[in-house]
Amino acid sequence: MILDKIKKTNDIHNLNLEEKKLLASEIREYLIDITSKNGGHLASNLGVVELTIALESVFDLNHDKIIWDVGHQSYVHKILNGRKEELKGIRIFGGISGFPNTSESKTDCFNTGHSSTSISAAMGIAKARDLQHEKFQVIAVIGDGALTGGMAFEALNHVGSEKTKMIIILNDNEMSISKNISGINNLLTNLRSKRKYRNTNKLWKKIIGHIPFVGKHIVKFISQIKDTIKKVIVPGMYFEEIGIKYLGPIDGHDILKLEQIFEEVKTFEEPVVIHVITKKGKGYSFAEENPSKFHGIAKFNPETGELLEPSKKTYSSVFGEYLIKLASRNQKIVAITAAMKDGVGLSNFARLYPKRFFDAGIAEQHALTLAAGLAKGEMIPFISIYSSFYQRGYDQIIHDICLQNLHVIMCIDRAGLVGADGKTHQGLYDMAFLKLIPNMVIMAPKDFKELEMMMAYAVDLKCPVAIRYPRGGENYNFIHHEKIEKFKSEVIKTGNDLTIISIGNMVGKAIKIANILEEKNIFCDVINIRFLKPIDEKTLLNSFNKTKNIVIIEDGTIIGGLITSIKELIVDNELRINYFKGYAYPDQFIEHGSIKDLEKKYQLDDETILSDIYKYFEKR
Amino acid sequence: MILDKIKKTNDIHNLNLEEKKLLASEIREYLIDITSKNGGHLASNLGVVELTIALESVFDLNHDKIIWDVGHQSYVHKILNGRKEELKGIRIFGGISGFPNTSESKTDCFNTGHSSTSISAAMGIAKARDLQHEKFQVIAVIGDGALTGGMAFEALNHVGSEKTKMIIILNDNEMSISKNISGINNLLTNLRSKRKYRNTNKLWKKIIGHIPFVGKHIVKFISQIKDTIKKVIVPGMYFEEIGIKYLGPIDGHDILKLEQIFEEVKTFEEPVVIHVITKKGKGYSFAEENPSKFHGIAKFNPETGELLEPSKKTYSSVFGEYLIKLASRNQKIVAITAAMKDGVGLSNFARLYPKRFFDAGIAEQHALTLAAGLAKGEMIPFISIYSSFYQRGYDQIIHDICLQNLHVIMCIDRAGLVGADGKTHQGLYDMAFLKLIPNMVIMAPKDFKELEMMMAYAVDLKCPVAIRYPRGGENYNFIHHEKIEKFKSEVIKTGNDLTIISIGNMVGKAIKIANILEEKNIFCDVINIRFLKPIDEKTLLNSFNKTKNIVIIEDGTIIGGLITSIKELIVDNELRINYFKGYAYPDQFIEHGSIKDLEKKYQLDDETILSDIYKYFEKR
Repeated sequence: MILDKIKKTNDIHNLNLEEKKLLASEIREYLIDITSKNGGHLASNLGVVELTIALESVFDLNHDKIIWDVGHQSYVHKILNGRKEELKGIRIFGGISGFPNTSESKTDCFNTGHSSTSISAAMGIAKARDLQHEKFQVIAVIGDGALTGGMAFEALNHVGSEKTKMIIILNDNEMSISKNISGINNLLTNLRSKRKYRNTNKLWKKIIGHIPFVGKHIVKFISQIKDTIKKVIVPGMYFEEIGIKYLGPIDGHDILKLEQIFEEVKTFEEPVVIHVITKKGKGYSFAEENPSKFHGIAKFNPETGELLEPSKKTYSSVFGEYLIKLASRNQKIVAITAAMKDGVGLSNFARLYPKRFFDAGIAEQHALTLAAGLAKGEMIPFISIYSSFYQRGYDQIIHDICLQNLHVIMCIDRAGLVGADGKTHQGLYDMAFLKLIPNMVIMAPKDFKELEMMMAYAVDLKCPVAIRYPRGGENYNFIHHEKIEKFKSEVIKTGNDLTIISIGNMVGKAIKIANILEEKNIFCDVINIRFLKPIDEKTLLNSFNKTKNIVIIEDGTIIGGLITSIKELIVDNELRINYFKGYAYPDQFIEHGSIKDLEKKYQLDDETILSDIYKYFEKR
Repeated sequence: MILDKIKKTNDIHNLNLEEKKLLASEIREYLIDITSKNGGHLASNLGVVELTIALESVFDLNHDKIIWDVGHQSYVHKILNGRKEELKGIRIFGGISGFPNTSESKTDCFNTGHSSTSISAAMGIAKARDLQHEKFQVIAVIGDGALTGGMAFEALNHVGSEKTKMIIILNDNEMSISKNISGINNLLTNLRSKRKYRNTNKLWKKIIGHIPFVGKHIVKFISQIKDTIKKVIVPGMYFEEIGIKYLGPIDGHDILKLEQIFEEVKTFEEPVVIHVITKKGKGYSFAEENPSKFHGIAKFNPETGELLEPSKKTYSSVFGEYLIKLASRNQKIVAITAAMKDGVGLSNFARLYPKRFFDAGIAEQHALTLAAGLAKGEMIPFISIYSSFYQRGYDQIIHDICLQNLHVIMCIDRAGLVGADGKTHQGLYDMAFLKLIPNMVIMAPKDFKELEMMMAYAVDLKCPVAIRYPRGGENYNFIHHEKIEKFKSEVIKTGNDLTIISIGNMVGKAIKIANILEEKNIFCDVINIRFLKPIDEKTLLNSFNKTKNIVIIEDGTIIGGLITSIKELIVDNELRINYFKGYAYPDQFIEHGSIKDLEKKYQLDDETILSDIYKYFEKR
């Protein structure tokens, strides 16, 4: 096995081309083996095997810096830099991260996870290098999808105007902007063919010979010329126009060609984009055929490509299916997402209502203000984005949606812990950062049925609404569902000893705990808060005055969420409380792992909560 | 006066071209008169007089929608739509807003204030129109500066791919991207000249005849061709490439020409960009010569262009000057801003240390991750941005800076109330939205001297730091300044009756109140909290246990700031407090007006606070 020779950074420098080709196929097998067991990002990693091998053959990662945009395609890089064995524990509690992580290796030079950050980060590192008169290469590897994020555009503009020496690898895997580019396969190769060149020349002359001198149709003709030029000769015009040299496209699975071009650009003293064409899922037929399924996949059978556990009903799928129902009854309902159509459950909606569905691309900012515009135009937009990506559109929520008090329904998928994706993706902040915005109404359902009820209810509210729910399925089978009343909580259980307040997915935990306590003759009010904002003060105060003992459980950060609201209520109402305990995630970034492992580590598990309560009631 | 004939929307439709030209000069006089008295955005409004007249002559604002990006250039629009008299009270408490405001007029169809939102909003409104089979025009007017914001790029991409019928006016006032474009004055006019056309044709042939067939220099040659094509014929290539028709450039002060092109594009069924060249400050020599000074200006003498009140020392100027001092001693210090160099006080720094200064353009997202990259590269970046614009880079603060615990010093200018700019610009949320992020240290200085102390102190902290300070000058002359100790507050005054806790600019108010109370024999601990996070629990608890009475004053929203932290402290420590009162801004968007007027309205004025305290101590 060549793979066994790869123990540390730069070991790849000792291989010849044939060995590298063998290594590529060994790495592919290894990736399929590991992701079939752990789940993970397979298709994107299979796509960058040769690219990573070529990059790390030419560059010296003890000095040079590679920043992997989004970062879920860094598995090959991890293998080449001393983490081949650790990869077996990737994304598992206590194991290495599924994204570049500076604390794992100095060859992971900048943490990534969210899209479109790499060019800004690389520019900062390159500028720091130049100011300190150091010499090393800085390389940003960014996908065509990530390039649609506005932040990447901001960075390209700045890099182009400052002419910062750095290398940008555009990893074009034909998933997103490919529509504009796929007509041209390899410009350089094409141009080397004399016949092609002659045709091009002839075509140009023909067009130029037909430009009219005057008249109102001139605009149309100019457009035609431009289209032709674009198609024939200037695929990189966009980059060149903003001041960045463009090379490519290059076959991203040809190690030799890649190494040659990387050697060439090493000497450049200005920024350069190298346009590399790769295939997602390359070398594994199931993934090549269905790269979307194998983008981030759960455990699967490597022989058949089939998932080991059948896909279950999730909050996302319930959201998507119920939105179809609502939309069939109400023509004003439209759906928006930002390049996560499948993830948020909107695939069927998009198929059924193509005109009422908008995928803004990796562009949360635009997506949210687009929603504001649609609301202003009397439509009722449901926008669904993952919790941690709402951070990208925070100003748009404040300035465009809430300031105008617009009826935009923000569905916050992947709220709370997300599990294996870890620090960058945990949805722990949404409650706190949304709660502080005027005009917001914030809800969270305790189960699927309540999600549907809240969606229907939100249609009638004439203000900005957020509905947050977790990744995956419901964790408790609630039979009874009280009708949703304006800003009212739901009292699920009553008792005189203790008030347990909980929100969303954590209500299941609250009821389980209350049921166990009941067996020990501790009787609880269990309040499903339903509305984080505005909060149902009356119900809470009634219960507090009765029990004087409070336990709160929420799947968010300890700062600024439900627990904070209740502390404020206590001070504002000068309550005397005997027992108060809030369970939430501490003020730190929470690593990857299963919900169970993380709840245990951060003491939100049933056992800890029960044991705390027993201790108090025993003392009493 | 022609201006007297303009009483309501569409009155301009009754004027002929000569009358419109006269109107333009009357409006200019009126704008100069009003802004010289009220202050305001003069240069940008003088630049769009003809553009607004032409737009509102061709379009029917009872149906068609114009969205003014950023919106500070909407004064002419307000004059043409029934608010000529109200303009006299613009930006004054109780008067109309300096930005488009949907509650003032239905011709203000979408609120703006922050940059780069117009295309997204316009697309939303246009999509809503099409879905409801309505017929009206949607026009976004966006400046060349605003076009550098990534959000505008995201929106253009989406508009281009969806081919949404809408009109985008690119108001190119030669302030920003003009460097790329200014060489071409009017493409259409140029092309109508036969001589020019011939030259172009000859040039092309020459180039095409020299393309080499093979060889390694081919890339260089292609670049040259592209440069030439770009310069000669395709200024709008950028737009065309993403699927949006491009027309222009057009002289933005030629009403007739503008009207002709607007009439033409009315019939287009696809998106179009009209590139209009205007001059900031047009028609007022002082503003033409110094558009930056007349961008947002205070009261001035219209005859001389000179400010009525000499510019005073501000927190921004103190920041800028002290950063120069720090940078002279520490080579690692660099400065970053996002298109607000003058506003944040960095002009001198930029002149003295051009290589260590980065203006990212209107691109807060990129600016913050650039800072993260610089920090990763061992530099010490100070980034200064206005409070409300940090909302634009929220994910970058969380995901790129704080998650990696990077030593980026975020200076938050215009924190608290900003006065005349109003709702979109109030810096009331930064404390709350930063406090909930792990690893953040948040400080606020009570005066200029303490700002300097905090800046120096921040250099030695090895984590993300925010320092927030208000627009304008200090409001109290503190003599004594205790050395800054790690996460310690400063006790400025001691007393047994009441604890007054305050932060930043509000500490001056706290000490004034405490001094007045002392005369009435009410003796206060006055605590300058200094660190909002982490908070100095020990000092606070000592004081609370002594006085049992608490007053808190902060210039932020009531949710999630200092008051919230103290309520949490009270519950966490099971304190029994006799008197508790927190003064902050309510959970709503706060309008424009002087600080004095707004403090009075929202009951943060000295009189209200004193009267509340008297009442309590009288009862006791």
